Amino acid sequence: MKITALAGGVGGAKFAQGLYRTIPKEDLTVIVNTGDDFEHFGLAVSPDVDTVCYTLAGLENPESGWGRADETWNAISNVKVLGGPSWFQLGDRDLATHLERTRRLNLGYSLSEITRDFCKAWRIDCRVIPMTDSRVRTTVLTDEGALPFQEYFVRRHCEPRVTGFRFDGIHTAEPAPGVLEEISSSDAIILCPSNPWVSIDPILSVPGIQPAVQNSRVVSISPIIQGRALKGPAAKMYKELGIEPSALAIANHFRYILTGIVFDSQDAHLKPHIEKLGIGTFTCNTIMEDSSGCARLARDVLHFIGSL
Amino acid sequence: MKITALAGGVGGAKFAQGLYRTIPKEDLTVIVNTGDDFEHFGLAVSPDVDTVCYTLAGLENPESGWGRADETWNAISNVKVLGGPSWFQLGDRDLATHLERTRRLNLGYSLSEITRDFCKAWRIDCRVIPMTDSRVRTTVLTDEGALPFQEYFVRRHCEPRVTGFRFDGIHTAEPAPGVLEEISSSDAIILCPSNPWVSIDPILSVPGIQPAVQNSRVVSISPIIQGRALKGPAAKMYKELGIEPSALAIANHFRYILTGIVFDSQDAHLKPHIEKLGIGTFTCNTIMEDSSGCARLARDVLHFIGSL
Repeated sequence: MKITALAGGVGGAKFAQGLYRTIPKEDLTVIVNTGDDFEHFGLAVSPDVDTVCYTLAGLENPESGWGRADETWNAISNVKVLGGPSWFQLGDRDLATHLERTRRLNLGYSLSEITRDFCKAWRIDCRVIPMTDSRVRTTVLTDEGALPFQEYFVRRHCEPRVTGFRFDGIHTAEPAPGVLEEISSSDAIILCPSNPWVSIDPILSVPGIQPAVQNSRVVSISPIIQGRALKGPAAKMYKELGIEPSALAIANHFRYILTGIVFDSQDAHLKPHIEKLGIGTFTCNTIMEDSSGCARLARDVLHFIGSL
Repeated sequence: MKITALAGGVGGAKFAQGLYRTIPKEDLTVIVNTGDDFEHFGLAVSPDVDTVCYTLAGLENPESGWGRADETWNAISNVKVLGGPSWFQLGDRDLATHLERTRRLNLGYSLSEITRDFCKAWRIDCRVIPMTDSRVRTTVLTDEGALPFQEYFVRRHCEPRVTGFRFDGIHTAEPAPGVLEEISSSDAIILCPSNPWVSIDPILSVPGIQPAVQNSRVVSISPIIQGRALKGPAAKMYKELGIEPSALAIANHFRYILTGIVFDSQDAHLKPHIEKLGIGTFTCNTIMEDSSGCARLARDVLHFIGSL
C-alpha cells in the first residue's frame, strides 16, 4: 500500500517516523509544510522539513522534538554576546543544515532538490518533498497585528490571540516536482497529527494539491485529545477562532476531503457526531510516547485505512 | 603619541595587540584590510577584521593565530556530512560573528558600524576600523588564472604561482568613516608585519588613504626574516614575482611612503642598503613568540618612532 503523508513539525515528524518503520520505505512519501520557513541571519531555515528529516534519520532531539540530538549552542550564545537575537534557538549542528541549504539555494538549486540530496546524505530511504519550491510564508493574524509565523510561534510563544491566517505567496505557488505524482499514485493520503491551521492547511492550499488529494482515500489523525493539543497551539487557535477544540473540530476542518479520521480512545464519545458527517472513525491510543508508540499508531492507522 | 596601525591578519593582529598593551588605548587606531572578505554559505566573512578583534579581545586561538580559542566545529563537520565545502574552517563560536554581521548588513548597517559595535561587545577599547565599507575583493593572479583570495589562500594553500594582484572594486571604494581623520591626527602610521601584497597594499590602495598616510611619519615592520615569512605566503610571492624576499624588499615595496623600517637583528647587514633609500632603520628581535613578545616589539618600534 503506497502512502503519502502530509506533515508539519514535531507531531507530523513522529507519525512519519512510525510509518517509516512500518511500511516498505519506497512506498512512503512525506510532503512537508514550508509555510514556517523563514530567513534568519541571512540563512534559509525550513523548520518543518528539518524536523521531519532529523526524525526520520534518527538525528532528532528526543526531548524537545525539534533540533538535533547531542546539540551544542556555541554559535547562538556568542550571537547573544554580540547583542544579536537569540529567540530562535539555532544549534551548531542544526546550523550546518541552514548553511548548506543557503549555499545551494544561492547556486540555484531548488528546496526540493536540496532536500532530496540531504535525505541521501542522512540515509533516509523514503521520499521527503517540501510542498513547494515557491516562496510561501505563513502569517498569523492576531489581535496585535499580522505576525510572521516564527515571530508568533517562537518569539511570542503563541501568546497573541489569533484571528486568522494568511499564506503569503500561495496563489502563485506550484507543488514541488513529484508532489502531485506521488499523491495521485498513492493508495491513501494521511494528514499527520500536525496543526491543521498552520501545518496541513498550507500544504492543501498550494494550487493543485487539494484536487489531487480529493481523488484518494484521505485519513486524518486528530492532534487534539480531550480538548488539548499534546504540543503546540492547535487547541488554543481553535478556541480563539470560536471553535471547541476536539476530534470533531478536526473532522469538520477537513470534512471536504476526509474519508476517515483516527482519534484517541479517550474521545470515543465523539464517534456518532463525526460519523454523521459521513466520515469513518477509528479510535485507539494516539499518544506517541516513544518511537515504538509512533510505529504502533502507524500500524493502527494503516489497519483502519485497509478497512475503509 | 597617537598611533594608527594598518593591519592584515595574524601578524598584524599580534603587533596590534602589542601596541594595545603598550600605549593608552584611546591613542590607538587599527585600520584593517577587507580585501580578504568573502561570502561563504551566504554569510559575510571578514577574516582580517575578525582576527584583529579576536586578538585584541583575547579571544583568539593562540595556536593557529586565527579563529577563536576553545572552539568547536560541529557546524562545519555537519556541512561536510551533507556534501558541502569544508575547506574554509568555520568554528561554531566564530560563526556567531558572521551570522550577526550578516544580519546587520542585511538591515543596512555598514561594516565599520558593525565592527565598532562588536568591539564594544568584546570590550575592545581602541578603535578598529575596516579600511572601507565599500566592497573590495582581492584577486590573486596566478599561472592557473585569477583566483579569489580565499580560494588561493585557504583552498589552494597558496600553491599556484603568483603573477600579480587585483583589488576589485578599489577604484570606487571610499575610506570608511574615521579612517582619514585618524590617519591625519596620528603622530605616526605603522605598517604592521602583515603581507605587503595582500594585506597592506589593499589598504593603501583605497583612494585617499595613501595621500593621507604620506603626510605623516610612516614606519614599517618587516614580516620577512632571513628571507622567510614567519607565517603566510609573503616570501613566496616576492620570489614568484622575481624579487628576493628580504627587509630590503619590504623597504623598496613601501619606499614611496616610508620614514623608517624595523627589521630583525638577524638581517642587520641590510641596514646600509636600506638607508641608501633614505629610509631610517632599526633592528631588534621581531619574532612575537607570545603576548609579551608582541608588547616588547611594540615598545621597540615606538622607541624607534620617537627617535625619528
